Amino acid sequence: MSQRPTVTACLIIIGSEILSGRTRDANLPFLAERLNELGVRLLEARVIPDVADTIVSTVNECRAVYDYVFTTGGIGPTHDDITAECVARAFGVPLERNPEAVRRLQRRYANTGIELNQARLRMANVPAGATLIDNPVSSAPGFQIGNVLVLAGVPDIMRAMFEGAKHRITGGTPMRSRTVSCVLPEGDLAQDLGALQDRYPDIEIGSYPYFRRGRFGVSVVLRATDAEPLTGALEALCDLIRRLGGEPIVQAKD
Amino acid sequence: MSQRPTVTACLIIIGSEILSGRTRDANLPFLAERLNELGVRLLEARVIPDVADTIVSTVNECRAVYDYVFTTGGIGPTHDDITAECVARAFGVPLERNPEAVRRLQRRYANTGIELNQARLRMANVPAGATLIDNPVSSAPGFQIGNVLVLAGVPDIMRAMFEGAKHRITGGTPMRSRTVSCVLPEGDLAQDLGALQDRYPDIEIGSYPYFRRGRFGVSVVLRATDAEPLTGALEALCDLIRRLGGEPIVQAKD
Repeated sequence: MSQRPTVTACLIIIGSEILSGRTRDANLPFLAERLNELGVRLLEARVIPDVADTIVSTVNECRAVYDYVFTTGGIGPTHDDITAECVARAFGVPLERNPEAVRRLQRRYANTGIELNQARLRMANVPAGATLIDNPVSSAPGFQIGNVLVLAGVPDIMRAMFEGAKHRITGGTPMRSRTVSCVLPEGDLAQDLGALQDRYPDIEIGSYPYFRRGRFGVSVVLRATDAEPLTGALEALCDLIRRLGGEPIVQAKD
Repeated sequence: MSQRPTVTACLIIIGSEILSGRTRDANLPFLAERLNELGVRLLEARVIPDVADTIVSTVNECRAVYDYVFTTGGIGPTHDDITAECVARAFGVPLERNPEAVRRLQRRYANTGIELNQARLRMANVPAGATLIDNPVSSAPGFQIGNVLVLAGVPDIMRAMFEGAKHRITGGTPMRSRTVSCVLPEGDLAQDLGALQDRYPDIEIGSYPYFRRGRFGVSVVLRATDAEPLTGALEALCDLIRRLGGEPIVQAKD
């Protein structure tokens, strides 16, 4: 049995450019894997446009349901960067200019010779009561308020922010996973796989078909918090693949 | 002024493998672009796990808000493919074995020598009242019920299904877009860009910074349904970039 509770998270991807197809999100896969290592399960992601009412209502809806909410995008200097003011509205607190954030921007811009103008100073505005999240790449900080962590959308910056803020996250038990592949069509395995799922209700069994070099194959992923039933299910899965005439290829991953 | 109304859509990406970081979604950018060409604006996307209650409630929430809802994923032969039964539950109708879908599967499997077993026959189950969506790649059909179109998760199949079903979609006015790039840091443009947005409230102006070959640059995207104000805003944007010492590079796209 798990010693620690399940800790959950939701990712809100803020950006009309994702919904127009112009930009492809790269933050979800990174956060999914890193959160799992911390024992936090990403249970939902939403992509929403740069529309204030939508951001406010989505943040409020998600922070009530999940242990942690991460947002990416919308914290730059331009008019379409409205995440900070929307998160302030969601929490019912004023947006304030943070003196420490101003100092960080001043230090950075003093070194580059670029003017710290009014638009750039907007990046020092955070909701009252928020704590800053460091941005080692370009200084303009993210922030945390309650269970909501507000990160940049640019992947390099988002990753650096996450690494600097992850000590604030209290995780539960990480999911362990085992992947077994075989060159059999998915439908050949389907019935036995369903029976295996019934036998191991605490294990998530996912089946992912592929078509490669002219042959149908399938990868089966077993996920659970406890190692012991995972080992038993893995053996049973390999047996059933062999029984169907396939050769199981175990790709250990933990 | 637009002659036709705004037509909206939401994409529900069903798949625990996306939320675990194992698989990267490739369907959102495709659908976003193709829908826009049809005059449909993708206003939200949600990634949810293979959990029945979550799928049912998300489908019901989204189909009440948007003109069209697209789902991807979860229509294969294995126990974790539960989209069809969940959509039936969402609409309050029984899940039925569709005779035409059975015929298509029979034809396909007769040609391959693979057994059309009970697990594969599950792929012929659709909600009562649904119409099939052709699958020219692997036969197992998608379906439409009400304003919900249920597509495969495998990108090649999803795309083929979409192309075959797009005549059912009644679009509004497509968004036109113009992109202008320049080698200036985003913060230099921010204030004037905000003023430009105030001057053209019907145009969506998005600002996307980049860092390439050691230099900061920005791409500004103008989006609107009407060509005329777009042309005026484009000229004004190029003027302001020149005034700030930059060289506007117009990447026409319509």
